[in-house]
Amino acid sequence: MDLKKLKEAVFEANQMLPKYGLVTFTWGNVSGIDRERGLMVIKPSGVEYGAMTAEDMVVVDLDGKAVEGGLRPSSDTPTHLELYRAFPEIGGVVHTHSRWATIFAQAGKGIPALGTTHADDFYGEIPCTRAMTPEEIRGQYEKETGRVIVETFRNIPYRDVPAVLVRSHGPFAWGSTPGDAVHHAVVLEEVAMMAWHALALGGGRLAPIPQALLDRHYLRKHGAGAYYGQSK
Amino acid sequence: MDLKKLKEAVFEANQMLPKYGLVTFTWGNVSGIDRERGLMVIKPSGVEYGAMTAEDMVVVDLDGKAVEGGLRPSSDTPTHLELYRAFPEIGGVVHTHSRWATIFAQAGKGIPALGTTHADDFYGEIPCTRAMTPEEIRGQYEKETGRVIVETFRNIPYRDVPAVLVRSHGPFAWGSTPGDAVHHAVVLEEVAMMAWHALALGGGRLAPIPQALLDRHYLRKHGAGAYYGQSK
Amino acid sequence: MDLKKLKEAVFEANQMLPKYGLVTFTWGNVSGIDRERGLMVIKPSGVEYGAMTAEDMVVVDLDGKAVEGGLRPSSDTPTHLELYRAFPEIGGVVHTHSRWATIFAQAGKGIPALGTTHADDFYGEIPCTRAMTPEEIRGQYEKETGRVIVETFRNIPYRDVPAVLVRSHGPFAWGSTPGDAVHHAVVLEEVAMMAWHALALGGGRLAPIPQALLDRHYLRKHGAGAYYGQSK
Amino acid sequence: MDLKKLKEAVFEANQMLPKYGLVTFTWGNVSGIDRERGLMVIKPSGVEYGAMTAEDMVVVDLDGKAVEGGLRPSSDTPTHLELYRAFPEIGGVVHTHSRWATIFAQAGKGIPALGTTHADDFYGEIPCTRAMTPEEIRGQYEKETGRVIVETFRNIPYRDVPAVLVRSHGPFAWGSTPGDAVHHAVVLEEVAMMAWHALALGGGRLAPIPQALLDRHYLRKHGAGAYYGQSK
Repeated sequence: MDLKKLKEAVFEANQMLPKYGLVTFTWGNVSGIDRERGLMVIKPSGVEYGAMTAEDMVVVDLDGKAVEGGLRPSSDTPTHLELYRAFPEIGGVVHTHSRWATIFAQAGKGIPALGTTHADDFYGEIPCTRAMTPEEIRGQYEKETGRVIVETFRNIPYRDVPAVLVRSHGPFAWGSTPGDAVHHAVVLEEVAMMAWHALALGGGRLAPIPQALLDRHYLRKHGAGAYYGQSK
Repeated sequence: MDLKKLKEAVFEANQMLPKYGLVTFTWGNVSGIDRERGLMVIKPSGVEYGAMTAEDMVVVDLDGKAVEGGLRPSSDTPTHLELYRAFPEIGGVVHTHSRWATIFAQAGKGIPALGTTHADDFYGEIPCTRAMTPEEIRGQYEKETGRVIVETFRNIPYRDVPAVLVRSHGPFAWGSTPGDAVHHAVVLEEVAMMAWHALALGGGRLAPIPQALLDRHYLRKHGAGAYYGQSK
Repeated sequence: MDLKKLKEAVFEANQMLPKYGLVTFTWGNVSGIDRERGLMVIKPSGVEYGAMTAEDMVVVDLDGKAVEGGLRPSSDTPTHLELYRAFPEIGGVVHTHSRWATIFAQAGKGIPALGTTHADDFYGEIPCTRAMTPEEIRGQYEKETGRVIVETFRNIPYRDVPAVLVRSHGPFAWGSTPGDAVHHAVVLEEVAMMAWHALALGGGRLAPIPQALLDRHYLRKHGAGAYYGQSK
Repeated sequence: MDLKKLKEAVFEANQMLPKYGLVTFTWGNVSGIDRERGLMVIKPSGVEYGAMTAEDMVVVDLDGKAVEGGLRPSSDTPTHLELYRAFPEIGGVVHTHSRWATIFAQAGKGIPALGTTHADDFYGEIPCTRAMTPEEIRGQYEKETGRVIVETFRNIPYRDVPAVLVRSHGPFAWGSTPGDAVHHAVVLEEVAMMAWHALALGGGRLAPIPQALLDRHYLRKHGAGAYYGQSK
């Protein structure tokens, strides 16, 4: 993909955030990566969605240094870079403060897999990170945020659970493209809203979805045996 | 009804899903049946609502084999067919992951009849199915989903309670036409939202609507003595 | 006011119901009265808001007999008439199944005055009626619904608390005009939503608004000492 | 800034209230101050947002006396003036009855800082005022409302916590400009909604955000070391 197309893909994925109600003001950012050239494209910091064009997307190298564009990249740039480094098969990353996912992050709880809506895109609980230490917070905070996410996925396959809740903060999600990452962020918000209310209705005694059902739904959409959607 | 009109009716009923806020992305599908010709028309799998036309609706025979249209039918096709087989008087079926109905499905609870909004369209509790067995899930899953719904209605009249919650999954609803099925899905979502909050407000001690009131509201809209709406 | 103007006022007040999110489908109706001529104008039964014109409003006499218009009046007509009979100073009535007010009605609880938003339009708790008897329900149900509302207001001034929750059913509201009645229905929905969440946050131990504050807010908008808004 | 520009700024800030869903009907008002001339510009009382123009904004002196414009100023004018008097660095004030903030006000509880969304704009808990006395309520009520807010901030820096909940009433927020004040009111509503649900999910045992994280987020957006957004 040439850089212009990547900038357009990142721009369009950013525009999905207000469209799906995931952001207020400028709270959120989507990036995409060109692994061959070693470049990442990301939303500029603090710019309103309605006022942006594809040209405003900022290009940085994998150390976070701006190589094109007069605007500052999102302040979360080091977190995005950390994820691209640790998760070699992803092509897009998104961060938001979407309401329901953030509620779980503020309560310090993962989102259990309670139904097939969850199982269609996430192969198990969406985890919440541990609390960051004062040293991590006072140091290279945004980079450390990425590291604590990577640590959380030490024993969780990042391709099968493409989102995380950063404790006391909010969600990050990823995918094969910037648009795919936002797709996961939308599903995350939907399952968070439903999990919150199902847990309350169940009185705290709610068992997660049976393993056979989790398998069936995740695998009918992902992997070799998938049969959902149109053949490509 | 000729097949073209049925395809239009199914298309229009599918378009009601985003209009009434029942779906995110492509999560949901409506079908209609032509019982004389033994054909079912259903939404194609994984296609966005905004990109569909009536021509894209897929025609299958009652074994689920596509007889017209280049697109794959919804992966839930075998569930729809099972319902048409068991419920001889219905003409439309809809499946969604609408938020409030899915919350009850995830908690494994039926929606009790708590008020006249419920009683106007559902003559009693909207049931939740039993959990499916691992064998059912690993076998012909979508067909078995239909069978467990039919099993749930062994002692419930399907015409008077035109919806169900599939446990850990989400709602199916039906009606005399595709549009009527979606009408019931909209009411289901509304009564689920209100039941969730009324149950919480009542502290778990909430009695269902008195039988006389359930009778009065259901019967003033349905059956020989109906007096709601305009005479036809 | 001539009859044509009343029909327009009733039509416009009915159009406020979907505008303010108080109705799904055709669930709701507004009426207005011409006390000099002894005529009431009301929404036709079961007709969609988008398809109505002012001409479709139905004119009935105070016994509920249609005197103009080919359409059937709302099935709730006898309830409206009962309220006009008992509450001589009102000029409009509205009935909806709006979500939050209906939740309180289904739980059989009145809405306590918890804040100034409530106090600005309602001078105290918005009451919930007693359960109707099987005899009332099986008899002239819609008329009896009106009677049980009137009974509820035996010791409550209807002008100062212009709404009620009919148990297991939903709200009725009234006012000096059809538009004023809908205004009260909108405020009712707003205060019901906030009361639900404030009660949950307060853990059931929440005291109502202090009497002095209730007095101040209600009286700065109503009566001789009012100083809110523009002088007329 | 000349008075015409201030009137436009106040008008536009008022228009943000319906845009961000903070008001129903005319419930809310924004003001701005010209400290050099000793004039305040505020929304007229009880006028609908859709019917207002910048010209309708009312100019009052710092005693609340109208010096321009035929309309009455908002009935909350004395509260705004009290805040401008006590908080010398603010340039805009807003009052609403926005749902989630009002819920906390009705429950008499402050909004604890539970996450970085809160920390980005509020440097600690958003407090709730004490209950006003009957004497304060029966006296110069709107002015006393301002005084009880100022009293609440005796030991809280008003620039770092730019909002308050008036008990049993609703929120006031402020900022360097009218638009900045509304910005804070929008964030307030967002964090109130998330705090309500995080507190319920945490079962009442939820600890506030760690101090290091509160510091980091507030200070990366405010003060000398800020690095969020574009350099000015």
